[in-house]
Amino acid sequence: MKAKDVRRRVVISGVVPQVDGGRYPVKRTLGDRVTVYADVFCDGHDLVAGEVLYRRRSTKKWSAAPLEPLGNDHYRASFFVSDTGHWLFTIRGWVDRFGSWQRDLQARVSAGQDVGMDLEVGAGIIAAAAKRARGGDAKALRETVALLLSDESREKRTEAALADDLRKLAGAWPDRSTATRHDREVIVDVERDRAGFSAWYELFPRSTATEEGVHGTFDDLIARLPYVAELGFDVVYLPPVHPIGRIHRKGKNNNPTCAPGEIGSPWAIGADEGGHQAVHPDLGTLDDFNRVVAAARDLGMEIALDMAFQCAPDHPYAREHPEWFRHRPDGSIQYAENPPKKYQDIYPFDFDGEGAETLWKELRSVVMFWVDRGVRIFRVDNPHTKPFCFWEWLIREVRQVYPDTIFLAEAFTRPRVMEHLAKIGFTQSYTYFTWRESAAEMRQYLTELTRSEAVEFFRPNFWPNTPDILPGHLQDGGRPAFIARLVMAATLSSCYGIYGPAFELMERVAVARGSEEYIDSEKYQLRHWDLDRADSLKGIIARVNRIRNRNPALHGNRDLSFHETTNDQFLVYSKRSPDGGNVILVIVSFDPNYTHTGWVELDLPALGLHPEESFTVHDLLTDDRYSWRGSRNFVELNPDVLPAHVFEIHPDGRDEKDFEYYGD
Amino acid sequence: MKAKDVRRRVVISGVVPQVDGGRYPVKRTLGDRVTVYADVFCDGHDLVAGEVLYRRRSTKKWSAAPLEPLGNDHYRASFFVSDTGHWLFTIRGWVDRFGSWQRDLQARVSAGQDVGMDLEVGAGIIAAAAKRARGGDAKALRETVALLLSDESREKRTEAALADDLRKLAGAWPDRSTATRHDREVIVDVERDRAGFSAWYELFPRSTATEEGVHGTFDDLIARLPYVAELGFDVVYLPPVHPIGRIHRKGKNNNPTCAPGEIGSPWAIGADEGGHQAVHPDLGTLDDFNRVVAAARDLGMEIALDMAFQCAPDHPYAREHPEWFRHRPDGSIQYAENPPKKYQDIYPFDFDGEGAETLWKELRSVVMFWVDRGVRIFRVDNPHTKPFCFWEWLIREVRQVYPDTIFLAEAFTRPRVMEHLAKIGFTQSYTYFTWRESAAEMRQYLTELTRSEAVEFFRPNFWPNTPDILPGHLQDGGRPAFIARLVMAATLSSCYGIYGPAFELMERVAVARGSEEYIDSEKYQLRHWDLDRADSLKGIIARVNRIRNRNPALHGNRDLSFHETTNDQFLVYSKRSPDGGNVILVIVSFDPNYTHTGWVELDLPALGLHPEESFTVHDLLTDDRYSWRGSRNFVELNPDVLPAHVFEIHPDGRDEKDFEYYGD
Repeated sequence: MKAKDVRRRVVISGVVPQVDGGRYPVKRTLGDRVTVYADVFCDGHDLVAGEVLYRRRSTKKWSAAPLEPLGNDHYRASFFVSDTGHWLFTIRGWVDRFGSWQRDLQARVSAGQDVGMDLEVGAGIIAAAAKRARGGDAKALRETVALLLSDESREKRTEAALADDLRKLAGAWPDRSTATRHDREVIVDVERDRAGFSAWYELFPRSTATEEGVHGTFDDLIARLPYVAELGFDVVYLPPVHPIGRIHRKGKNNNPTCAPGEIGSPWAIGADEGGHQAVHPDLGTLDDFNRVVAAARDLGMEIALDMAFQCAPDHPYAREHPEWFRHRPDGSIQYAENPPKKYQDIYPFDFDGEGAETLWKELRSVVMFWVDRGVRIFRVDNPHTKPFCFWEWLIREVRQVYPDTIFLAEAFTRPRVMEHLAKIGFTQSYTYFTWRESAAEMRQYLTELTRSEAVEFFRPNFWPNTPDILPGHLQDGGRPAFIARLVMAATLSSCYGIYGPAFELMERVAVARGSEEYIDSEKYQLRHWDLDRADSLKGIIARVNRIRNRNPALHGNRDLSFHETTNDQFLVYSKRSPDGGNVILVIVSFDPNYTHTGWVELDLPALGLHPEESFTVHDLLTDDRYSWRGSRNFVELNPDVLPAHVFEIHPDGRDEKDFEYYGD
Repeated sequence: MKAKDVRRRVVISGVVPQVDGGRYPVKRTLGDRVTVYADVFCDGHDLVAGEVLYRRRSTKKWSAAPLEPLGNDHYRASFFVSDTGHWLFTIRGWVDRFGSWQRDLQARVSAGQDVGMDLEVGAGIIAAAAKRARGGDAKALRETVALLLSDESREKRTEAALADDLRKLAGAWPDRSTATRHDREVIVDVERDRAGFSAWYELFPRSTATEEGVHGTFDDLIARLPYVAELGFDVVYLPPVHPIGRIHRKGKNNNPTCAPGEIGSPWAIGADEGGHQAVHPDLGTLDDFNRVVAAARDLGMEIALDMAFQCAPDHPYAREHPEWFRHRPDGSIQYAENPPKKYQDIYPFDFDGEGAETLWKELRSVVMFWVDRGVRIFRVDNPHTKPFCFWEWLIREVRQVYPDTIFLAEAFTRPRVMEHLAKIGFTQSYTYFTWRESAAEMRQYLTELTRSEAVEFFRPNFWPNTPDILPGHLQDGGRPAFIARLVMAATLSSCYGIYGPAFELMERVAVARGSEEYIDSEKYQLRHWDLDRADSLKGIIARVNRIRNRNPALHGNRDLSFHETTNDQFLVYSKRSPDGGNVILVIVSFDPNYTHTGWVELDLPALGLHPEESFTVHDLLTDDRYSWRGSRNFVELNPDVLPAHVFEIHPDGRDEKDFEYYGD
């Protein structure tokens, strides 16, 4: 037992945020304030002090943010992350000798005790601080020592010893030689804004031709982009744009046999024309693709590509690199299976076989190929069927060069697997949102996502539909259901997306009752969409995206609160911006058929409201305003009008025009 | 990235039990079953398998307990700890290649697919297992390979491949070369039974004389021990038995000045006659003390000593080792303070000063001195005012030689400090039990203690009273309050104690209204107790201790459940033995004045009862029996009769006589 360890009296525990006790990074976005909490204490009655130390991983020098006491040995400190990349923080705590002495002195003085000897003790503590101090502080501390030991009156010396300024001065030069340091440096992975706040629009480029039955091109896609931008999206996600295999090509409606001229699924990647680093000739050339990326950027949007690491049987890899695949006993390459289902049009890679090393490098080069073309967002197809360590490696490799790259994990699988993909590096994750079909289920799911450690690493991306998922509630519920799901996806989660134009045109016929597969799905055939149909949801989608963009409360998920209601068809929730200045309250009805009424019981503190305060709720969907007071208020939602309110809350005496973000 | 790491596909997370992510040991007692939970999963659809590895720290060889799946990637395994001392466990998981293949084969066969090639693949997996296997297993596996590759009928070969026995056989020889191992070895600190289940009786030896006004001796104490044994206690805890200082000695009722002949507080340790390794001459000799230890042992009890590491001003240490104390600027030794309060009769040690090394060794020799005299239980006075690292060192040093030593922390301080003392080695801890004065507060406190990580390291010891604490509810509530607090202390916590005879004689007058100090406290003067008083609680205390001893449900705190009731004066809770065979249901009224009635809403699964089952509740305090059915039952408690029921629950058709532990 070293003497120094004996004097290390402070204990630091219960450090938050951490993921798996510090094994994985905590996620934040640029400009976030990272608030750190810990229990810090020592034996006996002494006060403790401490600080959060933080730095960019790339710099050596730590900065410090002082711990503020919250009571019950609990402390807090916070710092801003002003750069993307990895940051580190840890905590340091020490016995506050001067503070403890000053507190005791105050108690003695208040009790009218003689403190002559205590002033001598204090002078010793201050003299030690003076030795550690520099410049003017050292001088001021030395002067205080002299005063305390002088023959000035007891009153004057005591008054000087109890001064608040002296506490600050001596506290700035504490004895940290026996400080305790938390045994982990927690990594904070700071990503750009769009990692945490994004609105995605998925579309099939081949269905963008102006003429029905014609294969769309990258130029058609470029012509479609202004429409997407008008809807208010900022990420345009394209299913694979590569050549499509011909062997075992699927026909319309997933027909195992394919008629001549059928175009196949874009996820059956690779043919004679090339593989993952080529574009489908019917879409255009790589140069055309470059123009798509540029056109999106000009509209303030980004292109996201699909990263589906699998091959059609006629992918050049299958011929040139058989060592990248598993083989059956007869020597043929093993196709994809989920027994008894067989996917003979797909060859999965063998990620841990003999050819793993060259395979991994090749796949990294695939990502870098598109990154070099300006793509910085990837939606990764089925990452849960490839080894975790492959993704951990790949994402690290790419982000070392391009730290602004975003990876969305399309893993619809078990919760622990989805969480682990998020821990090892995926920026965002698909979720179970689509299958939460009642207000109670939705509330429970969001509570899991935002009130557990998951909020530190799992960024949900909510999708009301995808080309693979036409949920039953959209099939049955029609327009009100589409709007309700849109509002929930866009306001419950700071990242969300729709698969369009199927969404805004309320495409809702499945191949069969009980199936979630679209009839005549674009996955296997061209579709032609009438974007100008009178019943299109494009107006309300644009409105919802405008509300998202203008209300900082909707740019994160940490400050989500649920409120009680008497009607169990209603989901009532609110979000606040980090500074508390913007508060959004959403009320959604899950019933697409009937008008519902009910009382909502607001958690006023969660809304930043006082119990006695009257306030105005301003429906940002309709521009209607209601005057409310207190926690209990009445709501009616008629699905034929709108199945949701999206209220901005204004305490009376304020107005939304006071907020600088308002107005076009 | 090494090839081996690439193939290490299994992830292990969420391991329970652990304390602070594995930084501190988990506590158990001899013969406990340690149940370990973890999330274990890999990418893709493969099955995983795994085991908990465990061993005594002193042996090299690991034993293994297989993980059983609980669904949702959650697994469990358990093992018995058959020895005191440190045990270690960790978890190992791997891909279950054979199991995955067999499951897929079954799916293919069920779908009527051709499985010829699959049998070949399986033969390869089994052949690999055969290479790892030994003896008969290897032979059996090789025979299966031969059969699968033979020209036997497809049906016969398939049947052999799908056999459950084959799964067991191949599963016993898995490929662990790419297994993942949890990154911690969790320490399990296994202590003897009394660490987890004990009933303490505190008494002042000097008040045990048969004649009033005479200083009791160790022989008087020996004569008192059968009385304590009859009450059913197993630990007899004595306040310090050392010589008492004369300088600044306190008088009766904590009077700062002491009249001639007054005897002082036993916690003011040390005088000319000796210090921590001496006994007070008025009590007797060390030989007499040895006889006390032996007499207690003969009655099935143990003596616990008070370990108060502080000195009276005339303790020999103060003269011989001034370097073990802090000094004031005038050179005098610094007395104890909690400004503005001064305790001039007490000198605290300076645990991290210049003399720390010899001081620590001396204090260790103090403990060893008493350990060598057969004392194995210590109640440690105010451990929170000494450095944590001192206790960590001292407890480790003592338990290395005498692993059966038990330390009870008398730390009435902030929650984080109390928890930390438990983490670093204290066996048991005093608690806030005394200040939980309503059913709701008590329920919340027990939920904190038993439903959080605290249950793994913090063993509560509940005291209705101590020489320092005569709570207001006993002062006001009288007999019903004493009984209610006794029943709760003894049944909510597997370790509890009372300070007697003050408790059984319902001593309840404080020095002043609002104070918790006893008037005429034994801390400062002799008391003479009439143990045969007609109203003594000794009968019910003996009954409660007998109930504790006979009902394994009351030997631990892990399986504590609370039940709802319509009367908020009632606290309703139950405990089950680890095997579920013994169930105790307690209903206590917090109101000492009025008869209360109410409905209790039983959580039937927590009681091991089916909703439709009728059952008998047998009040072990009164021997009354009631027939109950379903969850809702009526209860009346009259404080003038008894303020509590302690029911044993018998599903009808069974009887308590079926249980072997019943009967005298």
